[in-house]
Amino acid sequence: VVKELLRVVGRYKLSIEYLGTNFHGWQVQPEEKTVQGEIQRALEVILKQVGMLQGSGRTDRGVHARGQVAHFDCEDEIDVFSLRASLNGILDKDVRVLDVVEVPPKFHARFDASYRLYRYYVSTEYFCIQNETRIHLKPRPNFELMNQASDLLIGKHDFGSFCRSATSTDNKVCTVESSKWVQESRSNFWHYEIVADRFLHGMVRSIVGTLLEIGNGKRELGNIEILLKANDRRLAGPAVKAKGLVLAEVGYNLLDD
Amino acid sequence: VVKELLRVVGRYKLSIEYLGTNFHGWQVQPEEKTVQGEIQRALEVILKQVGMLQGSGRTDRGVHARGQVAHFDCEDEIDVFSLRASLNGILDKDVRVLDVVEVPPKFHARFDASYRLYRYYVSTEYFCIQNETRIHLKPRPNFELMNQASDLLIGKHDFGSFCRSATSTDNKVCTVESSKWVQESRSNFWHYEIVADRFLHGMVRSIVGTLLEIGNGKRELGNIEILLKANDRRLAGPAVKAKGLVLAEVGYNLLDD
Repeated sequence: VVKELLRVVGRYKLSIEYLGTNFHGWQVQPEEKTVQGEIQRALEVILKQVGMLQGSGRTDRGVHARGQVAHFDCEDEIDVFSLRASLNGILDKDVRVLDVVEVPPKFHARFDASYRLYRYYVSTEYFCIQNETRIHLKPRPNFELMNQASDLLIGKHDFGSFCRSATSTDNKVCTVESSKWVQESRSNFWHYEIVADRFLHGMVRSIVGTLLEIGNGKRELGNIEILLKANDRRLAGPAVKAKGLVLAEVGYNLLDD
Repeated sequence: VVKELLRVVGRYKLSIEYLGTNFHGWQVQPEEKTVQGEIQRALEVILKQVGMLQGSGRTDRGVHARGQVAHFDCEDEIDVFSLRASLNGILDKDVRVLDVVEVPPKFHARFDASYRLYRYYVSTEYFCIQNETRIHLKPRPNFELMNQASDLLIGKHDFGSFCRSATSTDNKVCTVESSKWVQESRSNFWHYEIVADRFLHGMVRSIVGTLLEIGNGKRELGNIEILLKANDRRLAGPAVKAKGLVLAEVGYNLLDD
């Protein structure tokens, strides 16, 4: 008797890749093509009882993801492999569900994420292959100097100076575990890689904009320390374009609890 | 007096990158957008007396290039840096002139090329970033077996079995210096890399198609040796799609003569 009263709800975790070029960002918006909106709609086509898709965090219009994570609840009995295939059959080619796994009901894509890894891709030479996910820098900045500046961001700091001013969040403290410029196998291709427990709105793009000013001799290296104390968005450099930014990975430690 | 009679003609070498997606290949065709055609037209806008652009070789419709090389003759006095900038100002974004250098008048982009390097990009997982230059393989082939098969292609062989039948060339002997599958930093991303003194029409794509049949258990490893003796296109595997193929490099040894 008890069994019949229980509604059996499963929670499922999705890993998602998308080319952000033609999306108005992650979050559902009326009348606009968004990643969350497209996946939610596809889920509702396939499943009868499906909850709201909850992402690990939003990405802005034009930003890409290789390892976005989201979860949803569902009362249907789900075969995860056929669900993935059905979703990818419905979704446009610029978004792919890489993986579907069942997770414990307490798992939360946003609150349980222990780190996020972003990469920002640049080139100091002319190029047209990979043009949708990389920006061309001219002139060539000083990468060694930018790496020194990147180092200064590591640790627990108030990143208010790198946060889009419209944000309502009060707590602007983030812990940056890793922050560096990496040279790729094609020597004039580089990316900036940053790992932190959380990111504020527009944070990576204004950090990259600020580092580029240092690399171009327009800002002093020591200015980074001032920015980390000022909590004033007007003091940091301008945000770089969305198209070079990729949410590469979201990490979870709590799945084994 | 003698000086006035001499027409001073310079020869110039271009290094070119293009995303082949929207081109009908390299070679000029009436009414179609081709790489050679677009660059020739741009040269004629900028320069007064300009000869025919000669490439290191043709690439098929949809094939990309990172390091295509071409030369042309010109009687104008040329500043190579401003010529590059002017060309890139005129050309669409899917083709870029990487470099312009003056070369000795005997230099020939096609006849002096000592090797060509092609790469064919694949993935064994779903993906949408880099979708324009990579194909998705399903199921996952056996890369170890394909690497054994790739090894058998190294050396001087008749590649007639891998040559599109319409080709008029009689000599189908090519010397392959290197032939291997390389795993990239993203573990399900691979590319096949082949270096040879020359390539026949459709050769890389039918080699990859044949190797994939071996990797999928549809063809025996030992069959490669038969193909290298048969000179019969009907015996090799089908050509894979153009979009995964990139002409990565063309090498010259003779510039120092």
